Amino acid sequence: MPALPKVLVTGANGNLGHALLPQLFENYQVYTLDRRTLDPSLIPQVAGFFKGDLTNPAFVFDLFSTHEFSAVIHLAALLSRDCEDDPFYGHQVNVNGSVNLLEAASRTRFETKFIFISSVAVFGLDPQEKPFMDLTPVEPTGIPVTAYGCTKRYIETIGKFYSRDRLDFRALRLPTILSPNHRPVPGTSDFLQELVVQALSGLPALCHLRPDTHLPLITLPDAALAILHLLKTPRAHLHQTTYQVQSFSASVQEFIDKLAHHFPDFHPQFFPDSFRQSIIDSWPASLDDQAAATDLGWSPAHDLHSALWDYLVPATKDLLSR
Amino acid sequence: MPALPKVLVTGANGNLGHALLPQLFENYQVYTLDRRTLDPSLIPQVAGFFKGDLTNPAFVFDLFSTHEFSAVIHLAALLSRDCEDDPFYGHQVNVNGSVNLLEAASRTRFETKFIFISSVAVFGLDPQEKPFMDLTPVEPTGIPVTAYGCTKRYIETIGKFYSRDRLDFRALRLPTILSPNHRPVPGTSDFLQELVVQALSGLPALCHLRPDTHLPLITLPDAALAILHLLKTPRAHLHQTTYQVQSFSASVQEFIDKLAHHFPDFHPQFFPDSFRQSIIDSWPASLDDQAAATDLGWSPAHDLHSALWDYLVPATKDLLSR
Repeated sequence: MPALPKVLVTGANGNLGHALLPQLFENYQVYTLDRRTLDPSLIPQVAGFFKGDLTNPAFVFDLFSTHEFSAVIHLAALLSRDCEDDPFYGHQVNVNGSVNLLEAASRTRFETKFIFISSVAVFGLDPQEKPFMDLTPVEPTGIPVTAYGCTKRYIETIGKFYSRDRLDFRALRLPTILSPNHRPVPGTSDFLQELVVQALSGLPALCHLRPDTHLPLITLPDAALAILHLLKTPRAHLHQTTYQVQSFSASVQEFIDKLAHHFPDFHPQFFPDSFRQSIIDSWPASLDDQAAATDLGWSPAHDLHSALWDYLVPATKDLLSR
Repeated sequence: MPALPKVLVTGANGNLGHALLPQLFENYQVYTLDRRTLDPSLIPQVAGFFKGDLTNPAFVFDLFSTHEFSAVIHLAALLSRDCEDDPFYGHQVNVNGSVNLLEAASRTRFETKFIFISSVAVFGLDPQEKPFMDLTPVEPTGIPVTAYGCTKRYIETIGKFYSRDRLDFRALRLPTILSPNHRPVPGTSDFLQELVVQALSGLPALCHLRPDTHLPLITLPDAALAILHLLKTPRAHLHQTTYQVQSFSASVQEFIDKLAHHFPDFHPQFFPDSFRQSIIDSWPASLDDQAAATDLGWSPAHDLHSALWDYLVPATKDLLSR
C-alpha cells in the first residue's frame, strides 16, 4: 500500500483545525503546526506536530526542506479584532506568515497544493449600494474596512504569483462561522452563537446587530467540508483560484424567529454596536457559491433550520452542561 | 527663524528622488534613505543621508527613535519586472519595507505625514470591459495582474489603519512616468521614451505595444509636482487617502504621430509584446484626477505637446549628446 500523502495543517489548535482533523487523518498523514503545543485531544489524529512561529522564515524554510508535504492547509491567522488592535502584528502573522509558507512551498521539488483560508472580510461594500439578497460574486469591490480583511485580500491576490511554477494555490473565502460558543468576550461575528447561549440559558438576551442585518453564514462542519472538497479536487477542474462558500444566508431577525419558535421566552433586545455593525454592513448579504458547486462538487449540509436544531442548539446544550 | 521641518525621502537615488529633491530642499531639511550610497549630485540638496535596508525593522525603528521627521516621502520600491521575477523579494521590499516605515512613523510622539507612492498597476481591468476614454475613478476594480500591483494595492489599503492615531497617511497613485531614457533594457512602461530615443537617433524604430493602446501618462516633473502638492496640503483639506494624477492620456498612435510630425523619417514598426501588452491592457486608459485638482490644487504642467517638445525631446537630445 502506498504511503498516505503528507499534509501540513497550520493553526491546527483552532476551531477549524478541530473540525478538520477527524476528516483528514484516515486519508492523509497529518502534520500540524501551531504556535502553541498541540491540543492533546488531537494527537491521535496526527502523524506528527511542530511547534513554531510562521513569521520566522528560517523556521518555515527549514521545515519544508526536511519534510515533503503534498499539501498545506493554512488556517493559522490572527483574527479581526486582534488585527485592528495591532495592525503591525496582524501583518506579521497574516501576511508574512502566509508569504513565508507560500515561498517555502513553492521552493519544493514537486507540486504542492496550498489551501489558504480567506474571509468575507475582503469585501468593502458601501452599505448604501450593498446588494441585498443578490448572490455576490467572487470579485470583491471596495476596500476592506478592517486591517484583517486587507491582509486576507492581499494573500488571495499574491498567492496567484506563486502559482506560476510548482505551487497550486487555492483560496477558500468563508463567511461568519457558526459553532458552539460560550466565551464571555465576543468577537465581531460571534453574536449568533451568543443568542443560542442566551436562548438556552434563559439569560436576558441582547443582540449587538440590527434585526434587518442580513449575512452569509457557514456552520463549522460545512466549513471543514468545503476545505476537504477544495483539497481533493484536481487542479485541472479548477477555473479560478479563489472560491467562496456559505451554508445559507439569513437575517438576524430570521435567526431569532427560528430560535423563538422553540424558546417562547426568548425576546432579545437590540443594542446595535456601531463598530461591529459597520464591519458587517460592508460584507455581502449572501455569497454566490455556484463556482464551488460546479468545480468542487460543493453543497452545504446545513440550512438555517438544520444548522440550529441538528447542530448549534444540541452542541451548545452539550457545552453548557459540562 | 524656526528650523525647517525634517522630511525623510526613501529611495532618493531613483528617478523621482532626483526630480523631487531640488523642489524640496529650500523649504525642508531633507534626509534621504537608500540602499545605495547617495548619488553625489544630490548631496548639496540634503541635510543628511542614511544608507540602510528598509526591510530590517530594527534599522527603521532605530532611525525614527533618533530623528524626528515631520514627513516621510516613501519612493523606495522594487519595480514591476523585478517583483514578477521574484515575488518574495518584491514582497520584502515593497510590502515589509513600507509596513516597517508605517509602524515606525506611527510610533512617534507627533503627527507624521506619510506619502506613499502607488501605481496605476493596482488596477486589474478586464480588457473586454475596460472603459476606453472614460476617466477612471480612484476605486480600483479587479485584481492586479502583476505582483507589483498587489504590493502597491495592499499598502494603499493597510495604510489607512495606521492613520487612526498620529500617522497622516496619503497615497499618490501615478501612471507611467515619462522621463528621458537611454537604457538598453526596457521595463514594462519605458516604451514611449524608447520611441523618442529612436526618433532622435534615426535608429530603426520598434514599438512593443499595439498602436491603439491608450494609456495615462505623467511627466517626471509633473509627478514631482503632484508629490509636493500632496505634501503641502493640510490634513483637513483631504477627503480621501488615495489620490491619482496624470499629465494627460494618449494612445500610442497619437504619441507616434506627434513625434513623426517633426521627424518625417520616423516610421515605427509594431511588434506587440504580449506580456507587456496584457499588463497595460489591465490599466485604465485615463485616470480621473479631479479629486487631486479639488483637494490638492493639482493641475499638470504638461500636455502631450509640451511633454514632447518642452521636455522629453530636448532632455533626451541632451542625454544622447553626452
